[in-house]
Amino acid sequence: MRISATFLDEISHDIPHQNWGPKEWEEDFKAMKAIGIDTVVCIRCGWKRWMTFPSKVLKREKQAFDPAMDLIGLFLRLSEDYGMKFFCGTYDSGNPWWHDDYPVEPEVKLMTAVNDELYERYGSSPAFGGWYLSQEISSQAGHGTDCYRQMAVHLKAISGNLPTMISPGIKGAKAYNERMEKLGKTIDPAEHESQWDTIMQRIRGLVDIVAFQDGHCEIELLPVFLKINKKLCDRYGIDCWTNTETFDRDMPIDFLPIKWEKLLLKLKAAEAAGITRAITFEFSHFLSPNSSYRSAGHLYNRYREYLEEHHLL
Amino acid sequence: MRISATFLDEISHDIPHQNWGPKEWEEDFKAMKAIGIDTVVCIRCGWKRWMTFPSKVLKREKQAFDPAMDLIGLFLRLSEDYGMKFFCGTYDSGNPWWHDDYPVEPEVKLMTAVNDELYERYGSSPAFGGWYLSQEISSQAGHGTDCYRQMAVHLKAISGNLPTMISPGIKGAKAYNERMEKLGKTIDPAEHESQWDTIMQRIRGLVDIVAFQDGHCEIELLPVFLKINKKLCDRYGIDCWTNTETFDRDMPIDFLPIKWEKLLLKLKAAEAAGITRAITFEFSHFLSPNSSYRSAGHLYNRYREYLEEHHLL
Amino acid sequence: MRISATFLDEISHDIPHQNWGPKEWEEDFKAMKAIGIDTVVCIRCGWKRWMTFPSKVLKREKQAFDPAMDLIGLFLRLSEDYGMKFFCGTYDSGNPWWHDDYPVEPEVKLMTAVNDELYERYGSSPAFGGWYLSQEISSQAGHGTDCYRQMAVHLKAISGNLPTMISPGIKGAKAYNERMEKLGKTIDPAEHESQWDTIMQRIRGLVDIVAFQDGHCEIELLPVFLKINKKLCDRYGIDCWTNTETFDRDMPIDFLPIKWEKLLLKLKAAEAAGITRAITFEFSHFLSPNSSYRSAGHLYNRYREYLEEHHLL
Repeated sequence: MRISATFLDEISHDIPHQNWGPKEWEEDFKAMKAIGIDTVVCIRCGWKRWMTFPSKVLKREKQAFDPAMDLIGLFLRLSEDYGMKFFCGTYDSGNPWWHDDYPVEPEVKLMTAVNDELYERYGSSPAFGGWYLSQEISSQAGHGTDCYRQMAVHLKAISGNLPTMISPGIKGAKAYNERMEKLGKTIDPAEHESQWDTIMQRIRGLVDIVAFQDGHCEIELLPVFLKINKKLCDRYGIDCWTNTETFDRDMPIDFLPIKWEKLLLKLKAAEAAGITRAITFEFSHFLSPNSSYRSAGHLYNRYREYLEEHHLL
Repeated sequence: MRISATFLDEISHDIPHQNWGPKEWEEDFKAMKAIGIDTVVCIRCGWKRWMTFPSKVLKREKQAFDPAMDLIGLFLRLSEDYGMKFFCGTYDSGNPWWHDDYPVEPEVKLMTAVNDELYERYGSSPAFGGWYLSQEISSQAGHGTDCYRQMAVHLKAISGNLPTMISPGIKGAKAYNERMEKLGKTIDPAEHESQWDTIMQRIRGLVDIVAFQDGHCEIELLPVFLKINKKLCDRYGIDCWTNTETFDRDMPIDFLPIKWEKLLLKLKAAEAAGITRAITFEFSHFLSPNSSYRSAGHLYNRYREYLEEHHLL
Repeated sequence: MRISATFLDEISHDIPHQNWGPKEWEEDFKAMKAIGIDTVVCIRCGWKRWMTFPSKVLKREKQAFDPAMDLIGLFLRLSEDYGMKFFCGTYDSGNPWWHDDYPVEPEVKLMTAVNDELYERYGSSPAFGGWYLSQEISSQAGHGTDCYRQMAVHLKAISGNLPTMISPGIKGAKAYNERMEKLGKTIDPAEHESQWDTIMQRIRGLVDIVAFQDGHCEIELLPVFLKINKKLCDRYGIDCWTNTETFDRDMPIDFLPIKWEKLLLKLKAAEAAGITRAITFEFSHFLSPNSSYRSAGHLYNRYREYLEEHHLL
């Protein structure tokens, strides 16, 4: 079991920025390649007034800030050079679109316009390989799935049916509520299964890959949830990946590199559940020798030794 | 628009210490010089029982701890060697002097005695170029301005009218209250203008430079506040600088290096408001290749590239 | 006064892991040796389901996770190679054994079984030099001391009377309660003395070394507490060490390297109280040139310069 994909955390809104330029990003693509990563997923192409590319739509509709760099262009060029597939995340306005009393239509309309512009601008790149629906849900069956359906239909239509991915959370003890407090209690697995059975019925054929985040529930409960996720995905013909988080949610400070032993446990649990592909959130801060956090470089070395030992490299 | 001054965060009380000795400080002055910094401002010469120099007054009055190093002496020597001006911050007892029911007289008396001692000891250095009133206020017109007036009169008298600087906050959503909770809501710009009009009337002729901190309000509102600040300063004949913070206030952890794009936006907003000088809080942790935070080194590189590209270096 | 011992923070539960392998650990033992550290204390051999060695007992009783590495074996080998004594910390289930309504017997029974297994496995190493009772207390005289008594009797019996150590906290303003809130107020020194007089009466002859943590109370009060601790230890024939914490408890983020000046003050206060040995929590994150925190490397340099200057190296 190895990690074959990573998110790229732009536009970041909760992880401190590393201030990399093209040279530093290229170094990082090299380091990804060296451990077998073949897919990179930009988590969102824009957030509130921040953009990863100079979007005329966002400039007009959101008075968005001129970006210091065309990150989408850079990521595509590096993906081409290093033989990777690039998935592009959709725009996130920061509005509470998942509230059932919040009008989701204007949100979808804006996202759609941004996607059109984006695909027109970058769709000809041979590395452009799919879409990531950046709207994260954990168990809502209402607006969240409406949004996924409408977006996926559109994205597939404009891009010749490119694959679509989502990465939902599990309603686990270590997930946050909207006031940024940890839930403290993990959802009953049967309840999780029932809610996701409903959601997957509604998104099958539209969402191709579901990669649940693996850090929200207690590690002891993870195997149970992974098996449910795999079973549900199989039932609805969806690819089941694991989003194996490389940051730690058990520390006074979230968002520092995870302990190698814990990452290994999570990968093994996914393997035991029959899952064959892992994406991580995310390489550049938490698993990279180039990270601002030195312990991420050590994690890279431990992971690489493990791959070598098991002839996975 | 470039950053031509930086605070030196001694005595720090909320940013983790970097444990530098004279050699590491010299490296950092070199790195400052290389991007055009010509003024350094020690944020406070003492805090509670901690001192930047072996003050007999603080030893006697506060049972202050013997410092491990004479930082003021070191900073002055490095300022001389690297052709910089040094501003010295006043002593901060940690007492709530800004409360209108707290007696401000003993505070001013102690600060005055420390300043006398300090200027006697270091005033002959050709680099000694001004004073920083370390008492930060955001909108109080009572004790805060009383304190500024009394201190400034005294400091100017003992030092041959050296310039004085303050760096107030804006009562913005990201400012903290005394219980270290973020305010969440930004003051109405008209209310800010009215309060600061009153304050500036009282400090004109005594305070020469006002450098508002630029990180407390939402970045969308910053241009409005910068224009008000500039207008008020012009009205009262005060130099208007911006204190462009190089740490990020939008993350789960405050006090990590800011994203380059955000810093650039803030600098441009200051320029658009007609402001010509920027100081930062602060170079050594957040914008330095020598910082404990590796992303600060990358920020330095991005900023330097920007200066080169615009022939500002 | 110098630091002659350090904890090894495995299994860590609140400090981000550094992901070191055998090579990195060896580098760190070298760096310890170079500043005169002769004793290393593994803070706990297991925590909840995590283990430092492949314990059959914990595997069976706790469904513990297979460790990625045999850390106890590694630490003993390095201790032998670098001429250090190794103290082994007892298992911590994470249960609230110190509550007087929580049954302590099963806890002691499990710890005892783990200790038996551990000593059988590693006791023949010439570096195995003592035990650390990992159950931390600050002032409880009930279950806490019961637990210490029972454990110490057993540990001494199986290991030919090897020395035992505890490292309690002071109920200081910066200590946490069980909800991870800082207490805010420091216990009255007389009350501390009275409580610890009772505790020491009960553990004398069983616990050989008491190393109070020195970071919980205000630094101004530390000399008072250190003197009380030394007096009590002397009264009951216990070795009094100081556990001089190398992380800072005064910052928005606890657990980053301390300021050198503060560490020096604490060491001098211990010396003035007649204490001759200091252990630190802990070298590898907060005082090491190999730490993920660059400021720890600078702290190492400052400390080393101090040792050289005072001919302590």
